[in-house]
Amino acid sequence: MINFTYYNPAKIIFGRGTEPELAREIQKYGKKVLLHYGGGSIFQNGVYHKVTKALKEAGISYIELGGVKPNPRLSLVREGVKLCREQGVDVLLAVGGGSVIDSAKAIAVGVPYQGDVWDFFAGKAQPQTALPVVTVLTIPAAGSESSDSMVITNEEEQLKRGFSTELIIPKCSVLNPVNTFSLPNYQTACGASDILAHLMERFFTQVSHTDLTDRLIEADFKTILNNAPWAIANNDDYNARAEVMWAGSIAHNNLLNTGRIGDWGSHAIEHELSAQVDVAHGAGLAIVFPAWMKYVYQENRDRFVQFAVRMFDVSISDAQDIDGVIFEGIARLERFYQSIGLPIRLSEIGIGEDVIGKLADRCVCDKPDKTVGHFKKLTRDDVYEIYKLAL
Amino acid sequence: MINFTYYNPAKIIFGRGTEPELAREIQKYGKKVLLHYGGGSIFQNGVYHKVTKALKEAGISYIELGGVKPNPRLSLVREGVKLCREQGVDVLLAVGGGSVIDSAKAIAVGVPYQGDVWDFFAGKAQPQTALPVVTVLTIPAAGSESSDSMVITNEEEQLKRGFSTELIIPKCSVLNPVNTFSLPNYQTACGASDILAHLMERFFTQVSHTDLTDRLIEADFKTILNNAPWAIANNDDYNARAEVMWAGSIAHNNLLNTGRIGDWGSHAIEHELSAQVDVAHGAGLAIVFPAWMKYVYQENRDRFVQFAVRMFDVSISDAQDIDGVIFEGIARLERFYQSIGLPIRLSEIGIGEDVIGKLADRCVCDKPDKTVGHFKKLTRDDVYEIYKLAL
Repeated sequence: MINFTYYNPAKIIFGRGTEPELAREIQKYGKKVLLHYGGGSIFQNGVYHKVTKALKEAGISYIELGGVKPNPRLSLVREGVKLCREQGVDVLLAVGGGSVIDSAKAIAVGVPYQGDVWDFFAGKAQPQTALPVVTVLTIPAAGSESSDSMVITNEEEQLKRGFSTELIIPKCSVLNPVNTFSLPNYQTACGASDILAHLMERFFTQVSHTDLTDRLIEADFKTILNNAPWAIANNDDYNARAEVMWAGSIAHNNLLNTGRIGDWGSHAIEHELSAQVDVAHGAGLAIVFPAWMKYVYQENRDRFVQFAVRMFDVSISDAQDIDGVIFEGIARLERFYQSIGLPIRLSEIGIGEDVIGKLADRCVCDKPDKTVGHFKKLTRDDVYEIYKLAL
Repeated sequence: MINFTYYNPAKIIFGRGTEPELAREIQKYGKKVLLHYGGGSIFQNGVYHKVTKALKEAGISYIELGGVKPNPRLSLVREGVKLCREQGVDVLLAVGGGSVIDSAKAIAVGVPYQGDVWDFFAGKAQPQTALPVVTVLTIPAAGSESSDSMVITNEEEQLKRGFSTELIIPKCSVLNPVNTFSLPNYQTACGASDILAHLMERFFTQVSHTDLTDRLIEADFKTILNNAPWAIANNDDYNARAEVMWAGSIAHNNLLNTGRIGDWGSHAIEHELSAQVDVAHGAGLAIVFPAWMKYVYQENRDRFVQFAVRMFDVSISDAQDIDGVIFEGIARLERFYQSIGLPIRLSEIGIGEDVIGKLADRCVCDKPDKTVGHFKKLTRDDVYEIYKLAL
């Protein structure tokens, strides 16, 4: 176990009918709210009504900025910054999934900063302060509702960049599983895949003696394996939705990487897929992870045996040798993805051998040492081989 | 799963050599520190030296108040309150185990309050503010380093009372496993038992659909089962000490009871043992818990089967029927306690049938509805039967 600092002051208000509690929290932080959201889904599923009702009943003044898209754009962030300054907004309320929350976080650091908000993502400046962010989560996936990170896309420069700071951990997030009942099954499945990926990026470490956090990761992973299929089969199963929602937050609130170093290579490899074709992040991860596993398992067989045995209950009697146990674990992961309707090969999303060289080039080109990942540092050629295994 | 609010802003700084980071944290909160501790152990094991060196190097002014005893006393808390007011102390630094931290928490709410600090424990007042508390943990057990609760003993009135408020969650706690190397084995074992008890009090719930938190509790429980014996066999095994230390905090920081209602009857039943004879809290819990289990398991057999199967890997093939699985789980818990040198029967600590009636009377006499526990509400006669099973 390596030294660590753990700090997560996000207040989670969880359960049915909890939206009114939001107003009390907002009043601790300010008087004028920017209500930030995406497309139309919050109008259809009643979340917009519940949230604005809570604000009105508490007499909280708010203005609105909708239109956040998946892979939230810098242009809208800049528009939000301008609007907040003009209108004297002092609290950001994000209602939506990870993209909406990330967009709100970027506005939150942008408003009090003299320069352009992209400076933080370009590594040119460090934020010193931020407006408080409060959220109402509608998509369990990204974990942004209690994380210290955000990812923003600069459309002009065709760059997608992440940034982390304690300043943007939401002050409070309302997680009402009922607000996820209306998610399309494919989106629920992609969210589950994103959560599993957050857990696997943490699980696959070369740090030894990580007994407690291994077991906590396994607990969260099994919860998703057991409950995501129920949520997909029965969209209004409150308990299955609740398990997935809470598991998604805990997967990414930094508790599960205390004392260890995660990998995050698969996330980098996936980013190039979403940049190339219109594939959801969770679906891309379902394609990349099994290929990554097949390519890197020899770096630490023990860890892959543990993955197969603890996550998927593989027994030595299921296989002829240790590698057989490992590959049975990977096969069961693939079968899980398929069972919830996700692709597991690049051919399923229209990516062929002709473009993977270009994707591999892009994946490492702007990295400081031209590699991605920590479990095994992957060069451009390694990434190419992983794409090839995923064809 | 029931609705919940989860909030824990304690910053955990974990690992070797982390004491100097403490000074930076303290400087965020004030200028004058009360260094609060217990007996002489921190002088012998070097912790006092490390902490005061960090304070001096950062130029932080401090005064000292030692002498905290197990079951921390109200008289010393009052003395601390007086001292802090006279000397203008604005930060409390607790260096020790749960008793020292609880004593510091009580001083923290007492200083800014006009009346007597016992008012909070007697239910006569609610604290509105508190001085910030910072801790250096030396005994993994009580979880007070990141909890919102404290227990204080009023010697004059012979009352032991707990109180909880978000205000006393420590701002920052330094957890350096090296600082636990010198703990006597019996104390390490009692700490492990206390942690297991915090987990079992949460595990045994009548709330259904608690998949994620069940699994997180099981993860923490297994970590203690696996690592506490190593820490006892090899006192300076850093990794085993680290696992136990971090597991102890997570067991009691409220994450693991999100969405569920814990029991806490066994804690109440144990308190009467420590009041009657000089037995450590953890040792008393090792006696009470198996007896409690044997008495209440019929209230929810499924939960006890899950306990046996998941915590202790009991298989149906280990027993002739379901009750056999349950009793094998309880037997394995008893054998675990014995393996780390703890008593499992009242006779081992000199308590006989002649006094258990009196203990049962005391246990429920001051409770609002004269019962303890939630899994099964235990009357005076139930508590008597549990003591009898523990003889």
